[in-house]
Amino acid sequence: MFLFAEMAPKTIFITGANRGIGLGLVKELLKVSGVETIVAGARNIDGAKELQSLAKSDSRVHLLAVDVANDESITNSVNSVAGLVGERGLNLLINNAGVIEPYGTSSTPNRATVLKCIDVNAVSALLVSQHFLPLLQKAAAKEDGDALSADRAAIVNIGSDCASQALNLRGSGPGNSLLAYKMSKVAMVSFSRSMAADFKNLNIPVLITNIHPGWVQTDMGGSNAEISVDESVTKIVASIGKLNAAHHAGLFNRELETMPF
Amino acid sequence: MFLFAEMAPKTIFITGANRGIGLGLVKELLKVSGVETIVAGARNIDGAKELQSLAKSDSRVHLLAVDVANDESITNSVNSVAGLVGERGLNLLINNAGVIEPYGTSSTPNRATVLKCIDVNAVSALLVSQHFLPLLQKAAAKEDGDALSADRAAIVNIGSDCASQALNLRGSGPGNSLLAYKMSKVAMVSFSRSMAADFKNLNIPVLITNIHPGWVQTDMGGSNAEISVDESVTKIVASIGKLNAAHHAGLFNRELETMPF
Ligand SMILES: NC(=O)c1ccc[n+]([C@@H]2O[C@H](COP(=O)([O-])OP(=O)(O)OC[C@H]3O[C@@H](n4cnc5c(N)ncnc54)[C@H](OP(=O)(O)O)[C@@H]3O)[C@@H](O)[C@H]2O)c1
Ligand SMILES: NC(=O)c1ccc[n+]([C@@H]2O[C@H](COP(=O)([O-])OP(=O)(O)OC[C@H]3O[C@@H](n4cnc5c(N)ncnc54)[C@H](OP(=O)(O)O)[C@@H]3O)[C@@H](O)[C@H]2O)c1
Repeated sequence: MFLFAEMAPKTIFITGANRGIGLGLVKELLKVSGVETIVAGARNIDGAKELQSLAKSDSRVHLLAVDVANDESITNSVNSVAGLVGERGLNLLINNAGVIEPYGTSSTPNRATVLKCIDVNAVSALLVSQHFLPLLQKAAAKEDGDALSADRAAIVNIGSDCASQALNLRGSGPGNSLLAYKMSKVAMVSFSRSMAADFKNLNIPVLITNIHPGWVQTDMGGSNAEISVDESVTKIVASIGKLNAAHHAGLFNRELETMPF
Repeated sequence: MFLFAEMAPKTIFITGANRGIGLGLVKELLKVSGVETIVAGARNIDGAKELQSLAKSDSRVHLLAVDVANDESITNSVNSVAGLVGERGLNLLINNAGVIEPYGTSSTPNRATVLKCIDVNAVSALLVSQHFLPLLQKAAAKEDGDALSADRAAIVNIGSDCASQALNLRGSGPGNSLLAYKMSKVAMVSFSRSMAADFKNLNIPVLITNIHPGWVQTDMGGSNAEISVDESVTKIVASIGKLNAAHHAGLFNRELETMPF
């Protein structure tokens, strides 16, 4: 078991960091000693007032415009992050950006809506992971110690209980409007498992895993959600500090307990 | 346990029926007594020589042009199938059309490729299922007996072992080129489970399930695959005949044994 007290990712990139869980993660990670650089991605940095004031008060925080659904934006962000992290490479990528597109069996069939949800939540996270892999490998090569841990190099997908086929049937709110969202989140876990297998075959010491934040009071989760952003991100950050090879390619709740596929 | 000897879907629509497993399913289903109408969907019916000669020799077979990735084509096909099945409605929809887009961690990042695979295999099957639901409900309303069985109304997705997150890590061929395909097939199971939950909530007596055909000698499976189309479709058709409520929203191999999510 590894704790951030002993080890921490020096350099971090988080997508969708201007509000909700992403913003909470930035704040919580700033409390971790050893963290040197947090690049906080936001689609619209001009509107990201809280991130702006965080960056003003803490020089470890850097704002970066990135729309994960836009390929050019991703490749630009790789260059920017590379400049900010320099020879250290990137220790931790958090794929947090996400959307819900309400959709259920009774919805008017709409291909674009379903595809958009899968594109942003799953395919974009895949592409971001692919594009940032060289920077993650660079960081992994720098550090000694356990091949798979978050202070070396890790990709953490903000997953969901909706990524669990086993838990799917227990229903999902009014009119079951999470059909497309669930497709996107199982697809996210799927690519993480394929990547994990590929990393192993290619001898790439990068950990990849999925953490469900809980049902959280954000714009997405709604005000009736079970827990606050604080309660969620405190646990997620503590869990990231404990990641090791046993968590490779899994699906976990915020306390790092295994969730069923 | 239900056998086709006792009961059979009168009316069937299969997508991607011009070659491979789809074509095999048409031939095998023609052996089932009780089957009255098989609508065999193909993107290009002019090129579908085997289907054409089947249709010539057996009046139960009807060719229908349908590209599942095209919304207008789907809605047109609903009208055509409605005309062919008439008051009987549709007992069995088989979502068989599918593609592999080779893609792995080391592939040049390509959003369009990944999205295409997910679009054809998962989103298209979802849209086809939604669009054909009224015809399936019509058939379900006609028949007595068990609410969930293939002679009443069922959607069978041709799934895959690639739909199993649990089995994913065991690797997947040269260069693990199945990353996008796996995303698509887990997403297919996901929508089937959401639909199953919705059907329950909405009191819709339509069964939906996923059957893995095995590794089959087709253009997709390649000539090194483990089993012939015949071996696969014989088992699939026998399994369809045994479907009951216990198979709702599951993932099964061709012998109807449960596969892990
Ligand atoms: N809240 C929950 O209960 C819950 C439960 C399970 C999982 N999750 C997951 O947790 C993550 C964060 O969710 P949240 O609750 O914090 O949601 P949120 O408050 O709605 O925030 C979503 C964030 O994602 C960003 N985003 C959306 N599309 C983007 C794109 N194309 N490019 C870049 N950023 C984009 C948003 O940016 P803009 O401000 O520019 O729109 C925003 O920063 C998501 O992956 C979500 O699926 C949440
Ligand atoms: N073979 C295996 O080992 C294996 C294993 C697991 C699962 N499966 C699944 O089994 C199903 C059938 O595969 P197969 O092995 O028979 O593959 P196949 O020989 O490559 O045939 C695929 C069929 O899907 C059709 N298709 C593709 N895109 C379509 C579209 N947009 N609209 C309509 N039809 C479309 C093709 O039509 P065209 O001829 O017009 O291209 C063809 O008829 C697929 O869902 C596949 O994922 C196969």
